[in-house]
Amino acid sequence: MEEDSTRFLESVLAEVLAHLEPPKDGRIRHDWSPGSLRKTTDLDLPLVGSGLERVLDDIRTYLRQAVRTDQPGFMNPLWGGLTPEGLAGELVTAATNTSMYTYEIAPLASLIETAVLDRMRQHLRMPHGAGTLTTGGSNGNLMGVLCARQAALPASGHDGFDGRSWCMFVSKEAHYSVAMAANVLGLGRANLIKVDTDDQGRMDPSALDDAIRREASLGRKPLCVVATSGTTVRGAFDPIDGLADVCEAHGVWLHVDAAWGGSCLFSSTHRHLMDGVERADSVCWDAHKMMGLPLVCSAFIVKRAEVLRAACAHGNEAHYLFHDDAEDQDLGRLSLQCGRRNDALKLFLAWRSRGDAGWGALVDRYMDLAAHLAERVRSEPHLELVGEPVWTNVCFRHVPEALPYLGEAIDAHNAALRAALLEEGRFMISRADLDQRVVLRSVIANPAVEASTLDDLVDHVLRLARTLPTDAGSQVEGPRT
Amino acid sequence: MEEDSTRFLESVLAEVLAHLEPPKDGRIRHDWSPGSLRKTTDLDLPLVGSGLERVLDDIRTYLRQAVRTDQPGFMNPLWGGLTPEGLAGELVTAATNTSMYTYEIAPLASLIETAVLDRMRQHLRMPHGAGTLTTGGSNGNLMGVLCARQAALPASGHDGFDGRSWCMFVSKEAHYSVAMAANVLGLGRANLIKVDTDDQGRMDPSALDDAIRREASLGRKPLCVVATSGTTVRGAFDPIDGLADVCEAHGVWLHVDAAWGGSCLFSSTHRHLMDGVERADSVCWDAHKMMGLPLVCSAFIVKRAEVLRAACAHGNEAHYLFHDDAEDQDLGRLSLQCGRRNDALKLFLAWRSRGDAGWGALVDRYMDLAAHLAERVRSEPHLELVGEPVWTNVCFRHVPEALPYLGEAIDAHNAALRAALLEEGRFMISRADLDQRVVLRSVIANPAVEASTLDDLVDHVLRLARTLPTDAGSQVEGPRT
Repeated sequence: MEEDSTRFLESVLAEVLAHLEPPKDGRIRHDWSPGSLRKTTDLDLPLVGSGLERVLDDIRTYLRQAVRTDQPGFMNPLWGGLTPEGLAGELVTAATNTSMYTYEIAPLASLIETAVLDRMRQHLRMPHGAGTLTTGGSNGNLMGVLCARQAALPASGHDGFDGRSWCMFVSKEAHYSVAMAANVLGLGRANLIKVDTDDQGRMDPSALDDAIRREASLGRKPLCVVATSGTTVRGAFDPIDGLADVCEAHGVWLHVDAAWGGSCLFSSTHRHLMDGVERADSVCWDAHKMMGLPLVCSAFIVKRAEVLRAACAHGNEAHYLFHDDAEDQDLGRLSLQCGRRNDALKLFLAWRSRGDAGWGALVDRYMDLAAHLAERVRSEPHLELVGEPVWTNVCFRHVPEALPYLGEAIDAHNAALRAALLEEGRFMISRADLDQRVVLRSVIANPAVEASTLDDLVDHVLRLARTLPTDAGSQVEGPRT
Repeated sequence: MEEDSTRFLESVLAEVLAHLEPPKDGRIRHDWSPGSLRKTTDLDLPLVGSGLERVLDDIRTYLRQAVRTDQPGFMNPLWGGLTPEGLAGELVTAATNTSMYTYEIAPLASLIETAVLDRMRQHLRMPHGAGTLTTGGSNGNLMGVLCARQAALPASGHDGFDGRSWCMFVSKEAHYSVAMAANVLGLGRANLIKVDTDDQGRMDPSALDDAIRREASLGRKPLCVVATSGTTVRGAFDPIDGLADVCEAHGVWLHVDAAWGGSCLFSSTHRHLMDGVERADSVCWDAHKMMGLPLVCSAFIVKRAEVLRAACAHGNEAHYLFHDDAEDQDLGRLSLQCGRRNDALKLFLAWRSRGDAGWGALVDRYMDLAAHLAERVRSEPHLELVGEPVWTNVCFRHVPEALPYLGEAIDAHNAALRAALLEEGRFMISRADLDQRVVLRSVIANPAVEASTLDDLVDHVLRLARTLPTDAGSQVEGPRT
């Protein structure tokens, strides 16, 4: 690399490291609208470039405007924080830019991807199988249903598929990517059957059994059941063993969406949440969520390797890439991608650094923090815990005395509370619907979070709620500050 | 970030920068089999981790074994080399780890992605439209066909789709991802009709017209035509204008796979290769190929934004992520991914640095280099240029006097020649089939390549060919060295 490029990259790293200090104003986000951000930021892509030096200015601008996902106040999505092994892995991946399709171009990278997938498969207690890193949990769910189709209809890849006569099953609280997969794969969203959940948000096996029978009586064949280990809002775990019984009875493929919950397997205390997963046909599991690697690092694992291979088949067209003599070592034969970046290295480095024990301790620590937050919420008379947490999702809402317990006013109040939190910029937590209520969802998936962060969050929510115009209840507690 | 993490990351960058020096032994690849690499490399994922310090050792090992895709001898796939803006962009993306689904979590990143997509759309001369960054050209082609389905059958996303009664069309020389898309979307590979090409590898519009009529007479409805701008082996550009005439006549969606060739649009000399692209319904175009950004950076652009939005619809399930008040600014509504990394930043930074003029100069330089290589091949009596290059793919083969001009022996000889090149490790070029012959394909897509690199490549191929046992022809030229 040229000397000025080397100096440039050293400057970029220095900027990045300086950026990672805690923000002086305590804000992890500035509430710019797209309009105002467009006005204050030069987004022009010029006819004549301004050279490498000016790129540093652009990087400074970008860093200034970036949401501080590394900071403890960031508890919004199912991921957060920054791990040094992950950042190092991404830097090395970018500098050694390769593509995972062939062993000859990605030799050690191919072995590393296989090693992390094999180890994840061991944690799933599947002695046999194969896998691939995908472009995220949504893609992993699509792969699961595609493999189900391949297994049920081996000729469909060649002959085509009438999706209208098939259906698939998922819990009412599952992720929206399953609906996208139903569309892409040709079943249609109408043939995605939402199965009832119990009061803890878990798919009910007998309701699944009923649903499969009902659809069969309407002439629709069951293609696949997608169980969720760690639902998006509540963090519920479907009872895999019970669902596997139903799937086995009907001869239906069982895919487990463990994008969020898969990491429970590292904890001897919590791995029971996924009891029975060894009976699944396929699983997806995101390492960029609870394991803290930078996006994207997402595994798809299947028990029958030949199904995945057949699902990704394309005739023998790619003579320019795959040669017969390397058939068994080229990971591109197990993927729907052609060019594919090395997402495995960061996971490998972090795993080598932490070991299973490190992952287990992380999960246990997150669970303790979630329990702490739930307890804090329970102890506040104006906060209501919505659902009992079994994972690190903690859903709650603010219930001022002056408003009715249910109904639109309280929903609007909590939506406004979340908007106020966002505008203030010290904490980011999510807003969702749960049990017909608008809730605030805080997720513990960020290594920077401590118990004191959560105490601050609760204090902050209470203080901010008091400033909201809809909160007449604050009047009885004293004047607004 | 902790002080020891900071020191660790500084060490990682120093290792990476040292690694980017030219290799002392001149080899860009070591020819380890998976078996021997597994034996010499510690791939164990331990129960108890060994900490951050040891991660540096693992990084050193990884760097030592990595194929030197940054070096000039790397001309194997449709990408190569390393650009400082790209590497800087990846570092910043990883350090500010975010997800592109919502504006609130990725404000400037969302504007940047929109800016690069809008600019690419301008180069396609489509005043209206939308787009998204995808996970690669394969995914972009799938999106194109999915949008075609959405446009032809707006209810299919909800009701499902019988793929067996539809068909799609592509040239015989197109990329294998189109066959994978036919499978995933339920048409089946049998309903992917391969249309004849002319002697320059271009889809023949009248052959397309015939094919559409023939399939219609068999009861199969035409869903989509996928034209290729820059085929994988030969670098051929399908005549978009002629194909658009046929598509318009039959009311069929035209998707252009410009993953490899899209960058011709920056060159006033070569942009004619994609004349008519403004008539396409959708296009994919990889910035990680000729534009030299690290994998993956791949654009999908569609003329009717509402079709893309509908194709990615999922009912209104994702209340936990998308809120109505942010509908128009959340890029997640235009994507099949949920969590999605920021692939736009690196492209934005490089574009700001180089401008359109810089991209144009890069394309012209690559074309000159390709012409130089083609000329060198033509001038060597034992080399045969296979096909006349119109893009930067240069396909050739070695034809020793002692072997027949056609047939298996000469194919085997060139396959062996490529294997010998790989084993020696100074150059990586690809092996493919073209016009029923095994050819060596060199691609100019690496900024490190110079004319002297190509002279060396030719000398090297000739020298190595002489050492091959099948090359009886070398006997007449003198003793083996």
